[in-house]
Amino acid sequence: MNADEFRKRGHETVERIAKYYEDLAASGRGPAADGVPDIKTLSTVEPGYLSKLLPTEAPETPEAWDAIQRDIEEKIMPGITHWQHPNFFAFFPSNSSFPGILGEMYSAMFNVIGYVVGQVGLLDTKTDPKNSFNWQTSPACTELETIVLDWLVKAMGLDDGFLSSGLGGGVIQGSASDAICVSLIAARQKMLDSKRAEGMDEESVLALGSKLIAYGSTQTHSSTRKAAMIANVRFRALDVDPVNLGMQGDTVAEAIRADLEKGLIPFYVTATIGTTSSGATDDVPGIAAAASAHNVWLNIDAAWAGSASVCPEYKHTLKGTELADSYSFNLHKWLLTNFDCSPLWVRNRKYLTNALSVTPVYLRNAASDSGVVMDYRDWQLPLGRRFRALKIWFVLRTYGLEGLREHIRKGVAQTERFTEYLRTRPDLYKIETGPNWSLVTFSIVPPAGASISANDLTNAVYDAINADGEIFLTHTILNGVDVIRFATGGVQTADEHIDYAKTVVERVTGAVISQKLL
Amino acid sequence: MNADEFRKRGHETVERIAKYYEDLAASGRGPAADGVPDIKTLSTVEPGYLSKLLPTEAPETPEAWDAIQRDIEEKIMPGITHWQHPNFFAFFPSNSSFPGILGEMYSAMFNVIGYVVGQVGLLDTKTDPKNSFNWQTSPACTELETIVLDWLVKAMGLDDGFLSSGLGGGVIQGSASDAICVSLIAARQKMLDSKRAEGMDEESVLALGSKLIAYGSTQTHSSTRKAAMIANVRFRALDVDPVNLGMQGDTVAEAIRADLEKGLIPFYVTATIGTTSSGATDDVPGIAAAASAHNVWLNIDAAWAGSASVCPEYKHTLKGTELADSYSFNLHKWLLTNFDCSPLWVRNRKYLTNALSVTPVYLRNAASDSGVVMDYRDWQLPLGRRFRALKIWFVLRTYGLEGLREHIRKGVAQTERFTEYLRTRPDLYKIETGPNWSLVTFSIVPPAGASISANDLTNAVYDAINADGEIFLTHTILNGVDVIRFATGGVQTADEHIDYAKTVVERVTGAVISQKLL
Repeated sequence: MNADEFRKRGHETVERIAKYYEDLAASGRGPAADGVPDIKTLSTVEPGYLSKLLPTEAPETPEAWDAIQRDIEEKIMPGITHWQHPNFFAFFPSNSSFPGILGEMYSAMFNVIGYVVGQVGLLDTKTDPKNSFNWQTSPACTELETIVLDWLVKAMGLDDGFLSSGLGGGVIQGSASDAICVSLIAARQKMLDSKRAEGMDEESVLALGSKLIAYGSTQTHSSTRKAAMIANVRFRALDVDPVNLGMQGDTVAEAIRADLEKGLIPFYVTATIGTTSSGATDDVPGIAAAASAHNVWLNIDAAWAGSASVCPEYKHTLKGTELADSYSFNLHKWLLTNFDCSPLWVRNRKYLTNALSVTPVYLRNAASDSGVVMDYRDWQLPLGRRFRALKIWFVLRTYGLEGLREHIRKGVAQTERFTEYLRTRPDLYKIETGPNWSLVTFSIVPPAGASISANDLTNAVYDAINADGEIFLTHTILNGVDVIRFATGGVQTADEHIDYAKTVVERVTGAVISQKLL
Repeated sequence: MNADEFRKRGHETVERIAKYYEDLAASGRGPAADGVPDIKTLSTVEPGYLSKLLPTEAPETPEAWDAIQRDIEEKIMPGITHWQHPNFFAFFPSNSSFPGILGEMYSAMFNVIGYVVGQVGLLDTKTDPKNSFNWQTSPACTELETIVLDWLVKAMGLDDGFLSSGLGGGVIQGSASDAICVSLIAARQKMLDSKRAEGMDEESVLALGSKLIAYGSTQTHSSTRKAAMIANVRFRALDVDPVNLGMQGDTVAEAIRADLEKGLIPFYVTATIGTTSSGATDDVPGIAAAASAHNVWLNIDAAWAGSASVCPEYKHTLKGTELADSYSFNLHKWLLTNFDCSPLWVRNRKYLTNALSVTPVYLRNAASDSGVVMDYRDWQLPLGRRFRALKIWFVLRTYGLEGLREHIRKGVAQTERFTEYLRTRPDLYKIETGPNWSLVTFSIVPPAGASISANDLTNAVYDAINADGEIFLTHTILNGVDVIRFATGGVQTADEHIDYAKTVVERVTGAVISQKLL
């Protein structure tokens, strides 16, 4: 494919992308008139569908793009569950946007590889001082990342301790799970280094690995447990307050006390602002106090709800984060930036570098240590990295902070619109939590005298809604209660989609109740 | 930005991308005529340049795309070191291609999030069996990945044990360092599980963590050391054969014996096919024998050279890989696929899942265990994932295997062309290694009677070439000898660029020698 062929196919692809989003925006409003596109949210293919449609080997000779384009439409498209569909109310919506797509296009054009370690990846950099500084391989990629992550600190209302101008700074991770894993590994290093500083010998320090214990709550995203598995440390899920579903400072303090008594070494706790299940928030100030008393690293996971703090009315939800060692959220969830884009900020970047740099301390470049430029390869698990700052820069500039606030408020208002409907039918629905930000959870109320339990009925309605495929919701369990989650925030979602969702939920609920009572 | 605005800006971006590659291809051929673009390979900005050009805060109100577009040209472009430049002979060229860019565009359009763990990321999935199966969230993304990675097994000539139809299979990682880290963590799990199977209690198993030791050679990429740091296990760099620079089976056998005697537990070794420094290859069959005798996981890192095995004449370099537990290479290096794209194959996928799944074994879905569909979230460090299989699919189909072989052979021939030149000037250059595939290393020969050492002279020439910025090379040290690496493989590189590189190297070498002898 030469440049002229790319021009032709690139333009076609731009048209296809624009039409895809137009079609999605027009879909999901109920029975469609002739000629109006009506894409279903959920794919309905069966597992293994694609291997039946594609050859078992790569072609020997080049194929024409037309054939590939046709296969995208005929073979790939049916297997897509449309995360950008206006009726995607599952998990949390994961936003793409046109500026975000342009960011991916420019990133693909440059195809620079952020930092690479050493000039030739030599293991033993001390034999090759030339390897210790590679800023020149991607100046713009590195510097734009530092700049837009500082912009975000200010825009979100995080404290200045996370700015790159001090000891801290931000770095774009691929996902919240990467961010959590990186912070946990930095915390491990910090704790073990503190033992070294006390004069402990290296063998004893190594042996301490098996005594380290990390905490989250039973409502914490599984990323923290996975990070503990990767780091080969213990993990304990602590109970949450039964009413607000947040983990309390006292609970953490007590866990630390008990584990210290057992000879374990608490070193890390994840506190969540806006849990995935229900949008609950942990007692961040209380947990910070408990953690700091014992040199335990406090990481804040605001993966979803963090985006909302771009609005003044949500800045209070950051209370206590000024005491945290690290903080992360996903721009790719609710802030209009294509996946993957999870900034992680740390209060002291040396802990990341100590944990993840293969360059001996005495060879690290003075420019890096001074904070003029960042060696981001030492701030993440992999070494290479894509030019992801571009899409953040494009999004922040094309929307402006005003535009981002408008997007957040639209999601909150749309969940309120749906919740208002739930409130009008207490005979059918019980609101279980929220709305918190743009998430509400509810259960189905069994009719008087029905023998079916609320849990069974809720599950039956949930299954029937998703089997239908017109709207996509997810399920969770809170305090033993089965609930349906309704999360808004999609770019394409109009109020009409919320209203249609009401009719779908009501219709399916009615049908399931009728059937169950037969 | 609405769909119509995106059409306009998307089309402009496509034109910009096409022109970028046309300009690059026209550049770097020597003094350019008026009006002919001549982009330099290396950026010449100073550290911190960008913060002087950009505001310190994000804009409150939306900015027009024209302003952003202007900033890309005026502020970002000068800070780009052009990895796609025809005169990029540093590290290893990292290929983008037009079909690869189209792949990124479609991936950005769909913006699906591969697998997400649990339906709501609930930590304790045993309370919510509905969480155990999420294939439906991205059927095409998952299935296309399995299919194209099976295609690659066949195309590269890897053995059938890496196919998904058996116990093995492939998964796309973001980088070779991710692939190595994932395989090391799977190996750790396998070793610890073998102790559990012998009846060891959990506390003792945990304590074994500090006894685990992983190996690579002094020429192994630092990714293995970094993976060991992440996993908190020991790492030892073993010596290589001084002549061929490969790690030998006997060396590994002896290291295992000695460490077992010390009470350590060897569990992992990386063997490299085509080291970064010189393109050396470890004694894979010998290392496989040494490793398998002690249940040590053998991982093959063929990050760069692996691409060449698409050609029949390089399939012999895979010798011994049929005995490996895992194998990875980067399509984003030499196989025309935009970064990031590092497939990892394992011979038994259950070790990945055992190490990285937060879902208890008894809840894992029968469909996943059967291999009809893969739970890729359990094959990688993060949980979410981009739709990266598209770009592989586009590249394999638009080039065909024939086109890929042609690309590999062009790189090899171009390095041979440069090496042929080095051979004509034994008075100036000493070939130190290779050419191996598309990499040759050489040093500068001091003139008779000169007091400067070969190392100092080579370093001076190296510095002067890169200061010039017309071509970009990298440096390494082999057996204490400073050498300059010359690596081809760029998509835009024509024979004329190789010829121009010769003149640059000769000119700079001459100038440095004259200056040093003054």
